[in-house]
Amino acid sequence: MALPEEDGYRLWLRHARLPAASLASIGDTFDEVVVAAPGLELASGELAEGLAGLLGRRPALREGTPGRNGVWLATRAQAEAVASFVSAAELAALGEEGFLLRRVRRDGGSLTLIVAAREVGVLYGVYELLRRLSVATITENDVVSVPRVKLRMLDHWDNLDGSVERGYAGSSLWDWHKLPHYVDPRYTDYARANASLGINAVALTNVNANALVLSAQYLAKVRALADVFRPYGIRVFLTARFSAPVELGGLPTADPLEPQVRAFWRDKAREIHDFVPDFGGFVVKANSEGQPGPQDYGRTHADGANLLAEALAPYGGHVLWRAFVYSNEVPEDRAKQAYDEFYPLDGAFRDNVVVQVKNGPIDFQPREPHHPLFGAMPETPLALEFQLTQEYLGCATHLVYLGTLFEECLKTDTFARGRGSEVFRVVDGSLHRRELSAMAAVSNVGSDRNWCGHPFAAANWYAYGRLTWNPERTAEELAEEWLAQTFTSDPRFVNAAKTIMLESREACVNYMTPLGLVHLMAWDHHYGPGPWISEGRRDWTSVYFHRAHADGIGFDRSEGGSDAVSQYFSPLKERYGSLETCPERFLLFFHHVSWDRRLANGRTLWDELCHRYSDGVRAVEGFRARWDALRDFVDSARFRHVAALLAVHEREARWWRDACLLYFQTFSQQPFPAELEPPRGTLSEYRAIRHYFVPGI
Amino acid sequence: MALPEEDGYRLWLRHARLPAASLASIGDTFDEVVVAAPGLELASGELAEGLAGLLGRRPALREGTPGRNGVWLATRAQAEAVASFVSAAELAALGEEGFLLRRVRRDGGSLTLIVAAREVGVLYGVYELLRRLSVATITENDVVSVPRVKLRMLDHWDNLDGSVERGYAGSSLWDWHKLPHYVDPRYTDYARANASLGINAVALTNVNANALVLSAQYLAKVRALADVFRPYGIRVFLTARFSAPVELGGLPTADPLEPQVRAFWRDKAREIHDFVPDFGGFVVKANSEGQPGPQDYGRTHADGANLLAEALAPYGGHVLWRAFVYSNEVPEDRAKQAYDEFYPLDGAFRDNVVVQVKNGPIDFQPREPHHPLFGAMPETPLALEFQLTQEYLGCATHLVYLGTLFEECLKTDTFARGRGSEVFRVVDGSLHRRELSAMAAVSNVGSDRNWCGHPFAAANWYAYGRLTWNPERTAEELAEEWLAQTFTSDPRFVNAAKTIMLESREACVNYMTPLGLVHLMAWDHHYGPGPWISEGRRDWTSVYFHRAHADGIGFDRSEGGSDAVSQYFSPLKERYGSLETCPERFLLFFHHVSWDRRLANGRTLWDELCHRYSDGVRAVEGFRARWDALRDFVDSARFRHVAALLAVHEREARWWRDACLLYFQTFSQQPFPAELEPPRGTLSEYRAIRHYFVPGI
Repeated sequence: MALPEEDGYRLWLRHARLPAASLASIGDTFDEVVVAAPGLELASGELAEGLAGLLGRRPALREGTPGRNGVWLATRAQAEAVASFVSAAELAALGEEGFLLRRVRRDGGSLTLIVAAREVGVLYGVYELLRRLSVATITENDVVSVPRVKLRMLDHWDNLDGSVERGYAGSSLWDWHKLPHYVDPRYTDYARANASLGINAVALTNVNANALVLSAQYLAKVRALADVFRPYGIRVFLTARFSAPVELGGLPTADPLEPQVRAFWRDKAREIHDFVPDFGGFVVKANSEGQPGPQDYGRTHADGANLLAEALAPYGGHVLWRAFVYSNEVPEDRAKQAYDEFYPLDGAFRDNVVVQVKNGPIDFQPREPHHPLFGAMPETPLALEFQLTQEYLGCATHLVYLGTLFEECLKTDTFARGRGSEVFRVVDGSLHRRELSAMAAVSNVGSDRNWCGHPFAAANWYAYGRLTWNPERTAEELAEEWLAQTFTSDPRFVNAAKTIMLESREACVNYMTPLGLVHLMAWDHHYGPGPWISEGRRDWTSVYFHRAHADGIGFDRSEGGSDAVSQYFSPLKERYGSLETCPERFLLFFHHVSWDRRLANGRTLWDELCHRYSDGVRAVEGFRARWDALRDFVDSARFRHVAALLAVHEREARWWRDACLLYFQTFSQQPFPAELEPPRGTLSEYRAIRHYFVPGI
Repeated sequence: MALPEEDGYRLWLRHARLPAASLASIGDTFDEVVVAAPGLELASGELAEGLAGLLGRRPALREGTPGRNGVWLATRAQAEAVASFVSAAELAALGEEGFLLRRVRRDGGSLTLIVAAREVGVLYGVYELLRRLSVATITENDVVSVPRVKLRMLDHWDNLDGSVERGYAGSSLWDWHKLPHYVDPRYTDYARANASLGINAVALTNVNANALVLSAQYLAKVRALADVFRPYGIRVFLTARFSAPVELGGLPTADPLEPQVRAFWRDKAREIHDFVPDFGGFVVKANSEGQPGPQDYGRTHADGANLLAEALAPYGGHVLWRAFVYSNEVPEDRAKQAYDEFYPLDGAFRDNVVVQVKNGPIDFQPREPHHPLFGAMPETPLALEFQLTQEYLGCATHLVYLGTLFEECLKTDTFARGRGSEVFRVVDGSLHRRELSAMAAVSNVGSDRNWCGHPFAAANWYAYGRLTWNPERTAEELAEEWLAQTFTSDPRFVNAAKTIMLESREACVNYMTPLGLVHLMAWDHHYGPGPWISEGRRDWTSVYFHRAHADGIGFDRSEGGSDAVSQYFSPLKERYGSLETCPERFLLFFHHVSWDRRLANGRTLWDELCHRYSDGVRAVEGFRARWDALRDFVDSARFRHVAALLAVHEREARWWRDACLLYFQTFSQQPFPAELEPPRGTLSEYRAIRHYFVPGI
């Protein structure tokens, strides 16, 4: 019997009817939702709506004290009412955003309490309860959950013209033309989705910024969005174009030390707060890829960040200053540049500045080592920035679950303070005992009906969001949760589909950039392979990064090379710096290696490269077969959508493999291993492929 | 009790449950759908699905002969089986696309027959039956319906980069990047919507064309869409860039008389038909607004059109050659140019060429007189081209029902062969006894969930589509039908909402361009008023068109002026040409009139202009009030969407009125009539308004 068609709009918040066995065990446990006092309309409404879906009947909703069953929602304003179940100390420990979800058996019934300081915490608890019900019947009786990261951000690279830089899911959600007058109900659903994960901050606009968004005309539009997001605990950030004092203010300079520039930003901050009283602050990309910045005036990044931070300080706002900078002069090693620029500035930033650092030192590649700044700036809060939109991971059409990438990065030990100095401890502030902490990710959300384009891409939004709340969660847990809520909690489905997700990123690494290669994509649009790219700015070419020659391949970043390894703490710098101890996954990132060198499994580098590329393709073939076997668990619209994209994915994985290997073969001058399928086309054919109007640029 | 929220996606095909009284009177009449033979799966499936919604139960579906009740579907292949109900002569009279819908009472039951030559005709009959059920219970027992126009086209101005020129409903429906591999189910719903109206041809791409769509890479994508549309009786057209032989073919010229150019198009037509065997043909904008064309080589429009027609002829394809041309030299009167260029070419076109003429001689203004070419080219099939997307009628935010504009144009008597030579008789070919006939409209469809952006904009798609089938339908009937299917058939709702629709276009004329004014919009994006626009190409300025001076306002097109009136047949040329007899709705289109001239109602021109502008604003105020009174009939999402946009509409109507009147006052030097609300701002304030990133450019 066919399942009803779905279009993905409801994401992981489908709240589909639970299986009969679960319903039987739940009984009338959740037949009533009781709020301890007014002011919990949003949380109780969300709960009632979700339960109505899960249980197939709408719970009663009332104010007061509950009977033996039901869910009781309360904030600290009702601490006395719930005192017999929740102590004052417990309540205090929740902070401003945490919640307590407690099940109490009494009189043969089962009362569920959700208590938090404010409604937003109760709302987080409501989503937690609904999630646990969706994934499996609740087993734990007590959940105390407090977010580990303070600013849990989603950053849109949305332009005011409605396009999305590196967006592969349609155009911008924000209809600037009709705002503030028409407020699309979809904005509310967007806020719900974020809040259900714990995301509490969104930057609306592209880091390649347009100053216009800071004008009164646009601030009125921003206000309309902020008003929608506020009840969901979400604060709005904007990208600040550093030259706005010139472009908007008519000043002759944007020099951060000029009094009139400081006055411009002070006035602008006040104006913004008049529109959006809980304005979050600015995200800034300065002196990078042509964006204006303080260095245009001979000032430092700290001067620039502090200028904005000073303006925002009276209102509690923050500056997220991106460390992804590289100057117009091509550096000897781009991997080193952010560290070289920011490391000396540790301690120079105002206390409402966060330096935002990409997960790796290059640029959101399928795999990079962690960014060496993590752990290296103990006096500065560092935000970890991931990219959900798949700029370098197959754009619109590849199924790549990034949970494993996130986990790999977060759980890497930086050794900044010896063993146990994992990236997540830097980011959540625990390593250096910092109050302020932040995570950010470039959104993959657009106007597509299913939000993220590829039906599996929403898993990356999900996994990222959940990690901002608790960066120690595993990719596997999050994949299971997402699958169960998005499709079905049937373990036959979840266990099989999970393997596709968990293997998908490694497959992508293999068919694109195995063994530590990076930055082999086509020029400009970044869609498809372009290992031969050699024209234009040197550190934007592929040949700059792979350095393939007759003698071997790879970028020597060892002590004898660019010495980028020295930016890492011991023992990583030694481990990465030696060809003997460098993990193979980073081999060609740190070393230039001869084609004939034997790797751990006994194969030569060339043969292993061929095998890795082929492994990537074979993995995607396997995904297709595994997905086909799951037909009965998924409605046909979503099933066919995924199946069609997996067919594209397989074709494109092979394109990557064949194009890259044929190209590298011109240097290795060695045959393909006989046991592998040879490339299907010729190098000149692959080089001649042209794609037009690739999305996202 | 609140109605369930709707998002407009289902358009007029909601097939919402009928009221109880209707259901009672229908009884078990439609409990069975019987196909006379295989090959009617689409039609019978659509019928079963629609009836399931209307009746709340799914009819049985089987093959064979029906019992006393049910719906029986048959094509002429089953002529014998249905011979006792439908004669051979009746069947023959239906042609290839018509249908017969016949209700036969027998054995106390009621059998409904839908018979047509081919499945697509049956499908049209199915939609007719569902429409009649949705709007009101069927009363007629016999409907014979044959389309009056052969090519019933919807023209998209969609670019290959996903943008839509003059699109106000999101981006293009066509996801060129993922085509042909991923075929969005939405393409099928789009085809259904068109087929339900009788539209049988769509041009996928912008008339400002990119030759790339004619490359094999894109033709594979076009094929995927054509394959979706084919079962719905829809043929695909493409826009042909005249310079494609140079751009794609590498030829040194696109001269239509060059043998190699002819060979290019012949080969290209063959190639296209290899991809799309039922390819419809080309829509061409040539030598207009910078587009290449035959005049670049000293050839005529006929030379250009015939070049393409020759290439398409072996495959039954057509060329829709647009008459909207104006050269790079500014003409003395742009209104005259299309006529001047095309009138001499009558008879020079191959018989598979249609010359496509906009409804008026300027450019889709709120009101224009009909285009003088209608009736003037008896040897040439003329397609009438409307614009559904509201480039000049408020863009994204104005509720303007165009049914009245369509009807006004179609029912205008051209007097080409004396009285009774209405535009619709020119267009349907009956006036000059032509087989080939065509109507076209620029689509207002985009990626917005509700397809057309403004919830009422879909009414324009609907009304246009229905008029292509029968151009004598009235705007009022079509408004009623659309409202009943889109919202509710409750007459209290339909009768009230209908008045908004029927008055809306006149309101727009009044607050934008009353009394025959045209082309007063802001430069470039065409959003909002810009009567002061005077820079750049003269015939793109507002001052060129309104010619306001101290002595009066209006463009003298009388015999003593540009003599554009002489392009019309008598008695229109005399009627329009005389200040005494010219209808006031066209007054300033044909005449330059002094500010003090008394009009029919005794007011001076200046006072009347003020009154008309004010009438427009008051009308929109009235729409808001009337809509607010309809709250109980509409689900809250759509109700609020319309209400929010009506608030914008009112604000913008006032903006138009105030800006235009203040500007014209600088010439009239007269006060505003005391009885009218004075403008709220100053002229310099209105002139200083800047809008950024207006959609659709």
